[in-house]
Amino acid sequence: MGFRLTPQDTSFFALFTSSAQLLVEATRELTRFLEVEPSQRQAVADRLKDLEHAADDATHELINKVNSSFITPFDREDIHNLAASLDDCMDYIEETADLIVLYRMGEIPEGLAEQFEILARMAEVTAEAMPRLQSMKDLKSYWIEINRLENQADSLHRKMVAALFNNSPDPINVIKVKAIVDGFENAADAFEKVAHAVEGIAVKES
Amino acid sequence: MGFRLTPQDTSFFALFTSSAQLLVEATRELTRFLEVEPSQRQAVADRLKDLEHAADDATHELINKVNSSFITPFDREDIHNLAASLDDCMDYIEETADLIVLYRMGEIPEGLAEQFEILARMAEVTAEAMPRLQSMKDLKSYWIEINRLENQADSLHRKMVAALFNNSPDPINVIKVKAIVDGFENAADAFEKVAHAVEGIAVKES
Amino acid sequence: MGFRLTPQDTSFFALFTSSAQLLVEATRELTRFLEVEPSQRQAVADRLKDLEHAADDATHELINKVNSSFITPFDREDIHNLAASLDDCMDYIEETADLIVLYRMGEIPEGLAEQFEILARMAEVTAEAMPRLQSMKDLKSYWIEINRLENQADSLHRKMVAALFNNSPDPINVIKVKAIVDGFENAADAFEKVAHAVEGIAVKES
Repeated sequence: MGFRLTPQDTSFFALFTSSAQLLVEATRELTRFLEVEPSQRQAVADRLKDLEHAADDATHELINKVNSSFITPFDREDIHNLAASLDDCMDYIEETADLIVLYRMGEIPEGLAEQFEILARMAEVTAEAMPRLQSMKDLKSYWIEINRLENQADSLHRKMVAALFNNSPDPINVIKVKAIVDGFENAADAFEKVAHAVEGIAVKES
Repeated sequence: MGFRLTPQDTSFFALFTSSAQLLVEATRELTRFLEVEPSQRQAVADRLKDLEHAADDATHELINKVNSSFITPFDREDIHNLAASLDDCMDYIEETADLIVLYRMGEIPEGLAEQFEILARMAEVTAEAMPRLQSMKDLKSYWIEINRLENQADSLHRKMVAALFNNSPDPINVIKVKAIVDGFENAADAFEKVAHAVEGIAVKES
Repeated sequence: MGFRLTPQDTSFFALFTSSAQLLVEATRELTRFLEVEPSQRQAVADRLKDLEHAADDATHELINKVNSSFITPFDREDIHNLAASLDDCMDYIEETADLIVLYRMGEIPEGLAEQFEILARMAEVTAEAMPRLQSMKDLKSYWIEINRLENQADSLHRKMVAALFNNSPDPINVIKVKAIVDGFENAADAFEKVAHAVEGIAVKES
């Protein structure tokens, strides 16, 4: 593990950071659902589709770099795993945004604004942590913060679903809204899996 | 990694190929749901149960072989992981087929034929790729094709669920059909995880 | 792999055993839902929340020990993975118990008693297996028993959901009860993932 500071390795960290930056952009785009008319929601979902394609490209660039590099900053399989975990976050965000349009969701339920805020914060914390993979320092605060945010997301999610069950008279609407609220909770879980992947690398390389 | 061509190692690839062949058979059996009367569906589910047992046996044979082999073609944990991923595909297929019977599904919804076609194609592509693990060559086309098929499955799945929500008046039926459509989407995701497991091995051994 | 018998290593096994013992306690607590009045359910959920916090602490102690140990009984990443798998079992149990309260579930459906019994047996078998990680002996009977129990849980779960669909007139209630029954099935799956993690370690170290 003496190769971390060579210029060649730096770009792995830059690629992980770019990948996480796309998540920051995606979670910012999500909040536009709260501002636009229902007729404009398709445009928001389209923009998220573009970001998802960009994230796919970033993931493939990482995989290609692993395959063509003689030296990697940590185990090839762990780079692969972390790249895939970041990609999963984007996939859940894009998919669930698409459901808002496809299911012709009515009014955006109140709790969604809070779900979006937590996801935005998770993305920021993740993007800030990626460059620290190079030194493997100060990562603990990142795990603790992601864990705290995931607990907050989880508690909010449970309450939103319970309120939906206890207050909504239309079962089809309950199923639709639950699928969307569950989808954003999956995105929050996916951010926690990124943190676990980073934690796994740190445990191994320590 | 100089042991790949010894006869001893060959059988790992043969076992992975057999395991994937069972998935080809299972996805072919699925299409029989489209042809038979509802009263014959139990027989289709039973046949899939048999295939699932055969897949379990194949997985255990792989695990036992790993445990008793002095030399393995790639890391023991990766063989274990790939065997488990293949097993997951069968589990989702068998489980969801069983739900068609258990939930006393009425008419098979149109989209299911397309889901079955995609799963059948995924199984074929996977079975064709398994022998190529020996040389680690020409695997890229397999990942690309699986990725394309999974995107197709995902897009179809979203549209099927949206149509179900927007057209079906009976909530219990919506929940039933959604569970079945989701189950086959889980099977498609599981095929993608097999491809990721293969990609992970290739990244590591390259 | 010659370090297993040193006193330093022993405590990893002790920590895994403690973590699994908390699952034994949690699954015992679950059965109290069958005995108490609905007004007392919050107290049961609170007790499970306490056990979940204790499990979190045990997981963090394991991670810290990995980070500060010069020698570990098996790969650091595998210790991390097994600790996380055990934690997932508790998370599903606690979350689903909380849903019983949050969703204001009416009568506890009959099948839940059987789900709880299977989970209790899974927890016991897991706790009994943890000390055997030290010798890596007699683990096969544990995998076989967990696999048998998971099949039993899976079959029960399918039947419970089918009965719910075919007998319950209230769609919102169907969605609620399904979410709870699914949650406990996730817990059973999580116990199987623990067994897979142990199997993976045994495969690697053999």
